[in-house]
Amino acid sequence: MGGYENGDSPAAAAWEGGVILGVDGGTTSTVCVCLPAAMPPPEAPGSVAVLSRAIAGCSNRNSVGENAALETLEQVMMQALTTANTDRSAVVAVCLSVSGVNHPSDQQRMLDWICNLFPGNAKFYVENDAVAALASGTMGKLHGCVLIAGTGSIAYGVTEDGKVARAAGAGPVLGDWGSGYGIAAQALTAVIKAHDGRGPQTNLTRDIIRKLEISSPDELIGWAYADPSWARIAALVPVVVSAAEDGDKVANTILHDAVQELAESVVAVVRRLTLCGEDGKDQFPLVLVGGVLEGNKKWDISGEVIKCISKVFPGVCPIRPEL
Amino acid sequence: MGGYENGDSPAAAAWEGGVILGVDGGTTSTVCVCLPAAMPPPEAPGSVAVLSRAIAGCSNRNSVGENAALETLEQVMMQALTTANTDRSAVVAVCLSVSGVNHPSDQQRMLDWICNLFPGNAKFYVENDAVAALASGTMGKLHGCVLIAGTGSIAYGVTEDGKVARAAGAGPVLGDWGSGYGIAAQALTAVIKAHDGRGPQTNLTRDIIRKLEISSPDELIGWAYADPSWARIAALVPVVVSAAEDGDKVANTILHDAVQELAESVVAVVRRLTLCGEDGKDQFPLVLVGGVLEGNKKWDISGEVIKCISKVFPGVCPIRPEL
Repeated sequence: MGGYENGDSPAAAAWEGGVILGVDGGTTSTVCVCLPAAMPPPEAPGSVAVLSRAIAGCSNRNSVGENAALETLEQVMMQALTTANTDRSAVVAVCLSVSGVNHPSDQQRMLDWICNLFPGNAKFYVENDAVAALASGTMGKLHGCVLIAGTGSIAYGVTEDGKVARAAGAGPVLGDWGSGYGIAAQALTAVIKAHDGRGPQTNLTRDIIRKLEISSPDELIGWAYADPSWARIAALVPVVVSAAEDGDKVANTILHDAVQELAESVVAVVRRLTLCGEDGKDQFPLVLVGGVLEGNKKWDISGEVIKCISKVFPGVCPIRPEL
Repeated sequence: MGGYENGDSPAAAAWEGGVILGVDGGTTSTVCVCLPAAMPPPEAPGSVAVLSRAIAGCSNRNSVGENAALETLEQVMMQALTTANTDRSAVVAVCLSVSGVNHPSDQQRMLDWICNLFPGNAKFYVENDAVAALASGTMGKLHGCVLIAGTGSIAYGVTEDGKVARAAGAGPVLGDWGSGYGIAAQALTAVIKAHDGRGPQTNLTRDIIRKLEISSPDELIGWAYADPSWARIAALVPVVVSAAEDGDKVANTILHDAVQELAESVVAVVRRLTLCGEDGKDQFPLVLVGGVLEGNKKWDISGEVIKCISKVFPGVCPIRPEL
């Protein structure tokens, strides 16, 4: 497979050696990029020509169900191919990094599905999205730990010799309280408790009612169950952060608890893989990804998480990959 | 409307004055009884001839969605009518006590729906199931507090002059941690945390894996999201109680936390309604209903809840209605 000729459009050139689809499937959104399978020209090593990029919604089967997740994945891949002026016959490889792929049986079902979608000799790779997130921060080298905290949360680590471990990433039923969903659900619970007399008053009541354009906390129950999407709940995180930044005690407690949960998930992975060496002091990369860990005005969640982790493992080297 | 003649079958007699349907709709199951609208004969005051009884699954709209809940309610009512050898034209009144009916708008939608189902002059009553549960323990008098803890949980109270208040009953997203769902979800979380290194080892791992016939905690994630029914999760409560009775520390902590949550919901309602009098020492009835509060071998959840409440309000008079 040669590089494409000077003057050709990337899309036309892609037809020659076929295309590769890379999919990053999250609980909030799913992104697919279409790349030429041909190597980049020798005069531009390291550069990758992205032929097209498509975006869709949630592809976490645990949040929206398997059928909806697979529909979203198919839709986003087909859209990327169309935008690149090509079609599924040109696909030589598909790399799916999808949240909610936890067990080997999840992986196998997705492989079976994608084989049917692209009949022929294409190659397929299916992983949890944490693998792609780790690679995105370590220049492709799979070593170290990644913490994702978006709508969902997971800590995932890989050793130099390929051992892997994960913690959390089990969704809201199974206690991912450091995730965006977890933070927002705690805030909604705090509003209900303040309203029915079980908990202290909090500005979250005023702020969440305003954000959701409802008239009373009584309406929260109907709102919460009208749509089971995890991302819809998690979208309230900025309200919680902003209330905490303005000094609300309840909101601050919720964020501190989330920091603790996130730090514990990283510590569990690092400990199980001995990423920090036998004396616990070796350096190791920690890639931080996801909306919850992005910088806020004053309340720096990822900074607090790193502070907690470094008390246990001082060799932690945080990396925030550019997207 | 007279009583029915001696020697008539109850079903045939029911045709004369019409029938009443009473529905108790829960998150685990829904029961409908069909009663004659005619008064009982004077020689047997207080006796009620139940013409038929039908049972179906969950009718909590917040758990299974509005359409599925209404389908279940229609199905259970039609089955009760058929079994009583009658049909919807004989219905003169329907009393629906259904969990998940929280806001006046929920009530109105259900009233609109049932009016369409029984066109004519029938009368309709729609309430949260806590109202029926309270009446079942106080011989029909609506005064005092009721605590329901089955798949879901709610505390609901009424004063002598008709003021009402409730606490909890907001479902799993909004923090009903004392419910059967809440207890079981905490147990599942404890298994995941023990497995990925975030929490202490617990016998719940062995017990829940055995109960669900899976081979490893990794499979719990797939299991948890394969079906969104709250009742399916809550069905694990007996495993948690049994582990706690056998001395498992993690299971004991989960039950103690649930006791605290349940007691706090009752205390909040009693305080808001001043059911305990101005000095906090008046007697008031507390009706206890639901699978979580039924007697276990050694770990008596309702006993512990009463102990907690009586520390704050010594006048609490527990009532466990016969079903």
